[in-house]
Amino acid sequence: MSDMLEIEIKCYCDDDEKVRKKLSEIGAGFIEKRRESDVYFNHPSRDFKETDEALRLRNVNGKCRITYKGPKVSLITKARIEHETETGDFTTIRNILLSLGFVESGVVEKDRHIFSYRTMEISIDYVDGLGIFVEIEQIGRLKDKIEKELFDTASKLGLTKFERRSYLQLKYFS
Amino acid sequence: MSDMLEIEIKCYCDDDEKVRKKLSEIGAGFIEKRRESDVYFNHPSRDFKETDEALRLRNVNGKCRITYKGPKVSLITKARIEHETETGDFTTIRNILLSLGFVESGVVEKDRHIFSYRTMEISIDYVDGLGIFVEIEQIGRLKDKIEKELFDTASKLGLTKFERRSYLQLKYFS
Repeated sequence: MSDMLEIEIKCYCDDDEKVRKKLSEIGAGFIEKRRESDVYFNHPSRDFKETDEALRLRNVNGKCRITYKGPKVSLITKARIEHETETGDFTTIRNILLSLGFVESGVVEKDRHIFSYRTMEISIDYVDGLGIFVEIEQIGRLKDKIEKELFDTASKLGLTKFERRSYLQLKYFS
Repeated sequence: MSDMLEIEIKCYCDDDEKVRKKLSEIGAGFIEKRRESDVYFNHPSRDFKETDEALRLRNVNGKCRITYKGPKVSLITKARIEHETETGDFTTIRNILLSLGFVESGVVEKDRHIFSYRTMEISIDYVDGLGIFVEIEQIGRLKDKIEKELFDTASKLGLTKFERRSYLQLKYFS
């Protein structure tokens, strides 16, 4: 998956019931709901707030994944290089990162309800302390084409207010 | 396993057949043999050669583990804090480390024949480019007691020449 971009848009959501109704109307399929607990780390010798990178451990039902996100490469979406893989237990991988000088920068917890629409993944996120958002995501190389599809889909769902900042930024740095 | 130490000694081995015979005589049981391919990384902002730390990705039969080793805490063995857990695919975790500024510092490949003796793990290591070594290891907190047991076991196996440096150091920095 090298050189593939994770291209996504984040939308403010005032009325999640309305979004669910529209998801049903356009034929999006419900995949699953899950509780995601994310711990973000800052780098020992560079500031991810300045470099626009992220390193995250995500706990979902006791399973842990590690994700690196590179700087955003689009002015309108959150398109960026992403490397993600599963890891063993959370405590050990956290101990490795702390031993290497990484510092915990924040925790974001949310209930995520995931839908599938064409080649996109659409999530209604109930983020603790922040509210409700909808994220629309696709993996690929054709950034401009995908970005148009994402915004078209947001429009179909009645979503018109967008946010490029991460939940971490919204929670801790806004 | 926090605060537990990985305590091990590395012994030069001139005659692996003799060691196998003695392992059999003292009742050590053969566990498995495997090919281990280790990639070591250096830190983006500190030099592990100076801090006596190590970060390693180990491939064994397509499975990958990540290991952090802290500085040695004994003058006679290789006792140190160790955090190790499995990870997803090697390529992705390597890409995450490279993106974070870690630099590959070397590769060590070996055939390892593993035996179990009391609460110790004994390995005959056929290290590419370096030769044959025997490592005797135990995990625990009672450093002095364990160190004595390790050297007693080495003595039973006829091993008298020891090495505190890692295979990485022996291969690249000696």
